[in-house]
Amino acid sequence: MSDKVRIALDAMGGDHGPAVVIAGAELALARHPESEFLLYGDSGLISPLLEARPALRAASRLTHTDIAVRMEDKPSQALRYGRWKSSMWLAIDAVKKGEADIAVSAGNTGALMAMSKFNLKTLPGIERPAIAALWPTLRGESIVLDVGASIGADAEHLVDLAVMGAATARILFDLERPTVGLLNIGAEEAKGLEEVREAGRLLREEKLPGLDYRGFVEGDDIGRGKVDVVVTEGFAGNIALKTAEGTARQIGEYLKGAMTRTLRARIGYLFARSAFRQLRERMDPRRSNGGVFLGLNGIVIKSHGGTDAEGFAAAIELGHGVVRDELLAKIRAALGRPSKHPPLAIGGVAS
Amino acid sequence: MSDKVRIALDAMGGDHGPAVVIAGAELALARHPESEFLLYGDSGLISPLLEARPALRAASRLTHTDIAVRMEDKPSQALRYGRWKSSMWLAIDAVKKGEADIAVSAGNTGALMAMSKFNLKTLPGIERPAIAALWPTLRGESIVLDVGASIGADAEHLVDLAVMGAATARILFDLERPTVGLLNIGAEEAKGLEEVREAGRLLREEKLPGLDYRGFVEGDDIGRGKVDVVVTEGFAGNIALKTAEGTARQIGEYLKGAMTRTLRARIGYLFARSAFRQLRERMDPRRSNGGVFLGLNGIVIKSHGGTDAEGFAAAIELGHGVVRDELLAKIRAALGRPSKHPPLAIGGVAS
Repeated sequence: MSDKVRIALDAMGGDHGPAVVIAGAELALARHPESEFLLYGDSGLISPLLEARPALRAASRLTHTDIAVRMEDKPSQALRYGRWKSSMWLAIDAVKKGEADIAVSAGNTGALMAMSKFNLKTLPGIERPAIAALWPTLRGESIVLDVGASIGADAEHLVDLAVMGAATARILFDLERPTVGLLNIGAEEAKGLEEVREAGRLLREEKLPGLDYRGFVEGDDIGRGKVDVVVTEGFAGNIALKTAEGTARQIGEYLKGAMTRTLRARIGYLFARSAFRQLRERMDPRRSNGGVFLGLNGIVIKSHGGTDAEGFAAAIELGHGVVRDELLAKIRAALGRPSKHPPLAIGGVAS
Repeated sequence: MSDKVRIALDAMGGDHGPAVVIAGAELALARHPESEFLLYGDSGLISPLLEARPALRAASRLTHTDIAVRMEDKPSQALRYGRWKSSMWLAIDAVKKGEADIAVSAGNTGALMAMSKFNLKTLPGIERPAIAALWPTLRGESIVLDVGASIGADAEHLVDLAVMGAATARILFDLERPTVGLLNIGAEEAKGLEEVREAGRLLREEKLPGLDYRGFVEGDDIGRGKVDVVVTEGFAGNIALKTAEGTARQIGEYLKGAMTRTLRARIGYLFARSAFRQLRERMDPRRSNGGVFLGLNGIVIKSHGGTDAEGFAAAIELGHGVVRDELLAKIRAALGRPSKHPPLAIGGVAS
């Protein structure tokens, strides 16, 4: 890898398209001067934005395409008319061809995942890719996966998620042996989903070198930061992520309401302004914007579709984090562990 | 129903046993003088607590039992040694015998559900009971179910949950036709879990009189209060509930930290004290303590095991709300709707 980090951007993705993507790239470039951007999208829209940003323009190469995947497209639709030629496809394709280290898009998640799978293919031994999210916690940050790439997971897939999640945590959090928990309901061994219990048995028995399996965790353990990596199938994971976002927004509204209702409260707010600013920053969903697609022959990062330039910059910077440490090579190595899954023992579970 | 509301209490349930249960009953009695309590548990522990509370003592009848279900018991264990004679069983049995209108316990959820099913049996047409939770939202409150009574649900069970949840919302929120949403990932028809999509089709086609089906909702729509009733199977529902609780606690910690860090912030806090108190009350998990078991021939309410007297009182008061309006009769009537599930049409989904 050269010193440069080469980032392919789907400039048309997201609710706001080039306006947010280009402004986000400018912010990321200022913080990471080693960035190089490959931009894909409508040059009529993008060129004027680059004209106004000479530094970004110097660090970018723009490839024009008329075709953009729409936010409301179904994955199959997007593949049908957007393959080979849409801005989303071309960004992914730059990773495939080795021209870019990562691709970032704020476009439609389903289409981005379908195109990524179609073009990059899954890693050996991995049947289904996953989306990993960074989750702010009381201890710092955790990784939660899968947050919606696929629905349902058997025990083997959950173990794969644990391995990929741990590899990501090693890199992003600089940990030797990240702690891993399986999301379940009720912490006792006898409770919860059959596949999750079976995955727990496999993880306890395999004693994988790259992770420290800590058993089951519940929904409220995520925010507590009980483990570095929380593993779940995509339906429950997506619901957990969205529910947490909704709760944070709800409390933010309560807080705003409470602090403006009376004169005393408004005075108090003025005094504590910098504390509130700090709080707002901690609660800012833009800080942890970006889901990493794992399990593919290449790294693709999904930004929230509705984010602004600051949030899009965070997604690019997440990409810097994983590229610098060569996430993909580490996941490949971890998946290539000698005995992947031992035969199932009958009965008796080692604690 | 007499004017009195007769409440059977498992006085031994919860992390703190009689101390919290009796103190909670006292609070509830003060607010609802029409309460009558049937108390079950160790009279050696309970009698002294009643001695100190003459009003409560006058409104209570205590039945002694040595046997209490422990918080860590498995449901099967609890049934084996606690059936016929534990405080939990006796409280449920009072409902069965018609001596009490509702039973409330802060004990072990799995055991309480197992005993409730075993003793009260499910309503005709209902295979599995559900736990409904009250969820504070930006618009007021919603009902979310199932939050953990059983794992997985086919389309028919989800429709039953919608019907039972709507009956509960009609009563608790005094609504004619509560709005109902199915929890899913992605709002488009094509997305999400097969069973959820099928349940959506059934709800759209049946056009049930007692509810207004509004389609899919996502995790962040719960706190927004997008619908009055959110329907989901128990695994995802439990994870959503616990994740929201965890997020609220996490933000509470951030807030506490921010407001004590600097002198200016502390001064601000003093000024805005009453606003903070209001905020704390809105975020107080005790306010919405109590899960209602639905789908049984009798109403059982589960309080959080770790709650205090205020929280336990809230669970009792939730019971008052549902008894007064005869929840059970309304659920029976709603389930006895004429055409329960029409034959499945092939293809074509009416919007």
